[in-house]
Amino acid sequence: MSESVKSIAVIYGGTRDEGNTEMLAEQAVAGLAVERIYLRDYRIRAIEDRRHAPGGFREVDDDYNAIIDRVLPHDVLVFATPIYWYGMTGVMKNFVDRWSQTLRDADRPQFRGRMRAKTAYVIAVGGDEPRLKGLPLVKQFQHIFEFFGMKYGGYILGEANQPGEIAGDKIACYQAQRLRAELHER
Amino acid sequence: MSESVKSIAVIYGGTRDEGNTEMLAEQAVAGLAVERIYLRDYRIRAIEDRRHAPGGFREVDDDYNAIIDRVLPHDVLVFATPIYWYGMTGVMKNFVDRWSQTLRDADRPQFRGRMRAKTAYVIAVGGDEPRLKGLPLVKQFQHIFEFFGMKYGGYILGEANQPGEIAGDKIACYQAQRLRAELHER
Amino acid sequence: MSESVKSIAVIYGGTRDEGNTEMLAEQAVAGLAVERIYLRDYRIRAIEDRRHAPGGFREVDDDYNAIIDRVLPHDVLVFATPIYWYGMTGVMKNFVDRWSQTLRDADRPQFRGRMRAKTAYVIAVGGDEPRLKGLPLVKQFQHIFEFFGMKYGGYILGEANQPGEIAGDKIACYQAQRLRAELHER
Amino acid sequence: MSESVKSIAVIYGGTRDEGNTEMLAEQAVAGLAVERIYLRDYRIRAIEDRRHAPGGFREVDDDYNAIIDRVLPHDVLVFATPIYWYGMTGVMKNFVDRWSQTLRDADRPQFRGRMRAKTAYVIAVGGDEPRLKGLPLVKQFQHIFEFFGMKYGGYILGEANQPGEIAGDKIACYQAQRLRAELHER
Repeated sequence: MSESVKSIAVIYGGTRDEGNTEMLAEQAVAGLAVERIYLRDYRIRAIEDRRHAPGGFREVDDDYNAIIDRVLPHDVLVFATPIYWYGMTGVMKNFVDRWSQTLRDADRPQFRGRMRAKTAYVIAVGGDEPRLKGLPLVKQFQHIFEFFGMKYGGYILGEANQPGEIAGDKIACYQAQRLRAELHER
Repeated sequence: MSESVKSIAVIYGGTRDEGNTEMLAEQAVAGLAVERIYLRDYRIRAIEDRRHAPGGFREVDDDYNAIIDRVLPHDVLVFATPIYWYGMTGVMKNFVDRWSQTLRDADRPQFRGRMRAKTAYVIAVGGDEPRLKGLPLVKQFQHIFEFFGMKYGGYILGEANQPGEIAGDKIACYQAQRLRAELHER
Repeated sequence: MSESVKSIAVIYGGTRDEGNTEMLAEQAVAGLAVERIYLRDYRIRAIEDRRHAPGGFREVDDDYNAIIDRVLPHDVLVFATPIYWYGMTGVMKNFVDRWSQTLRDADRPQFRGRMRAKTAYVIAVGGDEPRLKGLPLVKQFQHIFEFFGMKYGGYILGEANQPGEIAGDKIACYQAQRLRAELHER
Repeated sequence: MSESVKSIAVIYGGTRDEGNTEMLAEQAVAGLAVERIYLRDYRIRAIEDRRHAPGGFREVDDDYNAIIDRVLPHDVLVFATPIYWYGMTGVMKNFVDRWSQTLRDADRPQFRGRMRAKTAYVIAVGGDEPRLKGLPLVKQFQHIFEFFGMKYGGYILGEANQPGEIAGDKIACYQAQRLRAELHER
C-alpha cells in the first residue's frame, strides 16, 4: 500500500468558507500535496434523468465535466461534506447524481473503471449527534463506493455547531491525524 | 385519526415525467384531492449556509419560498423521490436543505411548529436492491422527521429500472394501495 | 430459478408456540414441503470462543450439531424470529454464534461452501415500529449472508403485539403470500 | 454532569478471558471504581415469552436476577461485547432478552424507571470491518436505550482478530482514553 506516492483529491461539499468540515479535512491532509475541489465554486446543474429518453443525455452547459476531469486522475478521494439534514449537501448530491450521466458519456468510457481503482474516505461534520445520525450518510457512501467496487478507506464523523467548534471534538481530530498518517504512508 | 378530511401534498423529487416513482405515488393518492408539487418545475438554489454570517441569511431570488408556502398548509406530506445514488435526488435535497433558512425566516415564524403537526410518508423507487440499499434514505428521513417531531407514517421502497417497470413490483403496489386506504380514512 | 424443486428449511427462533412470527412464516410456506426447525426444542449452548485457544474448539454436549445437519441439506433457509429488543432472539443468536465453531469443524469441511449456495430469507415480527426499528436486524442478516456469499432473497417485517395480531398487518401478510408464490416457482 | 461521583458497571458479553473487547473496555475504566459483570460466569437461561400466557412469567432457576440486581444500582452502564456475527454475543442477548420479564416483575417495579435514569455506552470489537458492519449493533443499542429513555453516551467500535490485536487500533484506544476522561469527570 506504500510503494509509491498516491495523489489525493479532496472534494468539498460545504457552502461556506473555512467551515468545520474544511478544518477537519485539512487536518487530515496537512502537509500533503492534494487537489482541493470546492464544489460551491462551480455551477453544477441537477441531473435530468434521460437514461430512457430518445437520444439519451444531452450536453449540459455547466462546469460539471471540468470537475469530474479534475477528480478522475487521483487515486484517493476524500468526500468532505457538512451534514445537512442528515445527508450530504445538495451541492455535493447534485455532483454525485451527475455520475449517472458520465457512466453513459462516450467521451469518458473509462469512468467506471477509473473510479473502481480508487480508495475513498468520507469526512462529515454535523451538529445533531453526528456519530449516530450521520450513519445513514456513512452507509449511503458505502453503497456508492460498492457500486464502483471502490475501496472504502474509512470515515470520520465530527460534531460541531459554531464556527471552529470542531477543534473541540478530540476524537474526530485524532481520527484526522491518523488518516493523515495513513495517507502519508501510501 | 379520521374525523375530518386532511389535506395532502405530494412532493415530487424526480427529474422526468411519469417516472416509476410518480406512477407508484399516484397509486397511493388515486382519487384523493392532493396537491402535487413537482420540484423539477421550479428554480431552487442550493442553500448558502449563513447561519453564522453577519446579517444571517439573505433573500434568495428563486422559487423556494413559493414552494414552501404551498407545502405548509397540508397535514400530510408524501416525499416521492427516485433513488439516485442511494439517496433522494439532488433536486429534493436542495429543497430540504433550504429548510435551515426557513427555520430562521422572520416571515415564517411558525415553520417548525407547522411541520411538527404533519404526518410524512416516503415513497422511493430505485433499481439496485432498493429494499436493502434504500434503507439509509429511509433512516435519513426518520431523522429529518424526528427533528421536527413529525409523525413518520411509513415508507414504500419500490424496485424498477425501465420506464413502467414499477407495475411489476407487486409488493410496492400493494403497499401503495394500503397507503391509499389509510389516507382515505383520515 | 425454477428448473427443479428446491428444498426449504424454516428456522424458528421464537420461544412460544404459534406466535405471530410462526403464523406469518407459515403463510409464506403454506402448501410447500418444508422442514421446520424449532430452535426452542433443542438444547443449544452459547459458543465458547476457542478460536485462539490451545486445541481449538471442544466438542460440546448439546443438540447443535444435530440441528446444523438438518439445516445444511436445504437450498433455501427462512430465518423466522420474533424481534426481541430489536434483534433476533437469544436462542437464535446462540445458534448462529456456533457457526464459528462449525467453520473450524473437521467433520463438516464443506460448511462454508454449502452455506454459500443457499438463498436466505428473514421473517421477523415485532411490536415496536418493526418497519423502522427492525432495520438493524435486516442489516445484520445482510452482513451474515454476505459473509458466506449467500443470496439474500428478501425480508418481511411484520407488526404485532397480541397473539394473532399479525393477521391485521395486511402488508406483511401480502408479502408472505408473494414469498410463497416465489418459493413455489423455484 | 460532574458534581458527584457516579458509579459504573461494565457488563461483559465475551466468552473468553482477556479478550480484545475486555482489553479495550479496561482502558476506558482504568483507575475508576467499576463493577465488572462477566456474563459468561453466570447461568442465564433464554427467555420464554410468557407475556400472554396464563399466569405470566414463571420464576426461573438461574442467576439472572442476581445479575440484574447488581446492574440496577449503577448510574452508568458499559455494554462491552465482542461482535459475533455482526451482533452482540448470544450470552449478552439472552441477558437483555430477560429484561422483558423484569419489566413485569412485581419484585422489581422500578426497573423501567431506574433504567431510564442511566447513561449507557457500547464497546464492541470485531474482526470484519467493525466500523461499518458493527453499525447495526450500534443502532440496535440505540433502539434499546430509547425504549427506556436512557441516554446513549457513545460507542466505540474496535477492530481486532488475534488476541491482543486491539492495541493496534489506535483510534479505538484513543476513544477509550477519551471515554475514561469523560467518566472521570462525571
